[in-house]
Amino acid sequence: MTLDQDTTRVAAARLQTFMATAFEKAGLPAEDAAAVAELMVRADLNGSDGHGVFRLPSYVRRIQAGGVNTRPNIRIVEERDSTALVDGDNGMGHLVMRFAAEAAIEKAKKTGVAWVGARMSNHAGPASLYASMPLQHDMIGLYLAVGNANHLPPWGGAEMLLSTNPIAIAVPTLAEPPVILDMATTVAAYGKIKTAAQRGETIPEGWMIGRDGKPLTDPNRADEGFLTPIGGYKGYGLALMFGLLAGTLNGAAMGRSTIDFNNDESTPTNTGQAIMAISVEAFGDVTAFKRNVDEVVRTMRGAKRLPGVERIWLPGEQSSHKRQDRSKNGIPMPAALRRSLDKLAGQLAIEPLG
Amino acid sequence: MTLDQDTTRVAAARLQTFMATAFEKAGLPAEDAAAVAELMVRADLNGSDGHGVFRLPSYVRRIQAGGVNTRPNIRIVEERDSTALVDGDNGMGHLVMRFAAEAAIEKAKKTGVAWVGARMSNHAGPASLYASMPLQHDMIGLYLAVGNANHLPPWGGAEMLLSTNPIAIAVPTLAEPPVILDMATTVAAYGKIKTAAQRGETIPEGWMIGRDGKPLTDPNRADEGFLTPIGGYKGYGLALMFGLLAGTLNGAAMGRSTIDFNNDESTPTNTGQAIMAISVEAFGDVTAFKRNVDEVVRTMRGAKRLPGVERIWLPGEQSSHKRQDRSKNGIPMPAALRRSLDKLAGQLAIEPLG
Repeated sequence: MTLDQDTTRVAAARLQTFMATAFEKAGLPAEDAAAVAELMVRADLNGSDGHGVFRLPSYVRRIQAGGVNTRPNIRIVEERDSTALVDGDNGMGHLVMRFAAEAAIEKAKKTGVAWVGARMSNHAGPASLYASMPLQHDMIGLYLAVGNANHLPPWGGAEMLLSTNPIAIAVPTLAEPPVILDMATTVAAYGKIKTAAQRGETIPEGWMIGRDGKPLTDPNRADEGFLTPIGGYKGYGLALMFGLLAGTLNGAAMGRSTIDFNNDESTPTNTGQAIMAISVEAFGDVTAFKRNVDEVVRTMRGAKRLPGVERIWLPGEQSSHKRQDRSKNGIPMPAALRRSLDKLAGQLAIEPLG
Repeated sequence: MTLDQDTTRVAAARLQTFMATAFEKAGLPAEDAAAVAELMVRADLNGSDGHGVFRLPSYVRRIQAGGVNTRPNIRIVEERDSTALVDGDNGMGHLVMRFAAEAAIEKAKKTGVAWVGARMSNHAGPASLYASMPLQHDMIGLYLAVGNANHLPPWGGAEMLLSTNPIAIAVPTLAEPPVILDMATTVAAYGKIKTAAQRGETIPEGWMIGRDGKPLTDPNRADEGFLTPIGGYKGYGLALMFGLLAGTLNGAAMGRSTIDFNNDESTPTNTGQAIMAISVEAFGDVTAFKRNVDEVVRTMRGAKRLPGVERIWLPGEQSSHKRQDRSKNGIPMPAALRRSLDKLAGQLAIEPLG
């Protein structure tokens, strides 16, 4: 992404305070407001531009419309030694999935691996946030989610019955940045369509097709078409399977029961997500493993390149570069986003971002 | 696939006996020969045409070249309550992964979920074989593997450092066929390229590109190019992550250490695979879950269709249809495959398929 000349930078700490204040004013308890803001600014630092502060106005609208429970009783309702089913009680998804990730990590410490599913959760930001949580415990993380709006038909269909159901996998390293894949099962995530619309950009051919089967490149016409899955029927298959694992298994929404949170701000979404933690130590020496991952990383990066390719990237590496840049220089803030945040500040009667 | 007029059918039982006899003659103990033949014929019944009897001549060549240990000590070398690392001792991959899947199922019965990795394994046939094993225990199965030859460069690269590292996920149902996704992370699996070459067919544009960056459609020139990943960098990311999880985590081959089993029949491949079993019962009522999966299946199948589309398929559904047809009418046997099996029968001095 190139930054246009209207894009300014805002310090992460300032942005985090702004978001925490907004959430508190909207009705979240101070501690929860701070926790969600911290996770959201982490998304912005990582370069997940469609999943950080960009979402603040819609999250606040949802809270104000009564679509999110601001005093949830987030709890485990089914449990085995290595599994748990969390009921998020319609709380903010960030709080639900932080709870779920912590439960998975604790269980994996004892039994080697754990899988924790959630229902009655909500949109929780980028998948990589939660997949990365096991890393500092020398664990591999895997996260699946059911998206909050259906943008994808089954392969051959013309009716949107699946979301972009993302997967994130995070693997620890020794000296290299952790390897973190975070991807939607569509060619583009819907967040990227929304970001393009806000920026007044067109989208590349191949991201969406219209109901007429023709390419759709105007993000403002997104309602008239659907996203295309990666690898055709394969991406459809992945979206379906991740939906069954993160949604149906947990008694969460999937398929026709998915609530389109873009058009409905008050009905509980019953969002489903799942997180797995795998303890590296259960498979052998941790340092040896991390060194081997570093070696794989360097092998890929050092591969012969196609003509015109300047650099081969590893999953999560560009995000790591952005994190370094943004931690130092602030988070880029396109003019349209800043205007929407100023408007929000006015509505909430809080100090604008400045 | 349309059957050409040279394609005949062979009864599954007859094919299984033929394969078991061939393996025993080649040096496997009778019990192991029967077990591998049973799993291979299951692959043929399921329509995994590149992974069943098609592989028999190369498996036998590998055994005869000393590339596979015919008397392996397949054992668990690291273990936690919900994890195990299996050392396959360079035995036939089918035996190693059957052992691993059984271990995962037993552990998941106790703790809700289990992850079992394998190293020093070998090519084990289609991923769906093992992902499906937990189904009859009302469990979800997930299988990952490192392929046995590198056909994929990292995204932007021109050097093949990754295999098509497949994933399979199997979800139980009530009245519908189980939902079983089995896919390589490339647009086409290499087995399909080999099958096309054997049949004298060309491959579609998009399956492979040459080192010149141009489409490659002659499967006999496969050595001059590489497979393309699904969704560009996303498929590369999936292949890399599955390789780290199924290979590196287990101390198995990955990246440069992968042995190309097409060109080397005697070096142990140190193949890595992983299987996960998730007990549905740990998340709620099993029958209710299966009924909900059935409903998702019917919702997808019943979606409005694009013009010209006759039917929407679920992952595993075509395979289920093939299984019914082939169980009754026999397994299709193209003339070229039959000739290669006749030749093998001659070499082993066993009765030909007839």
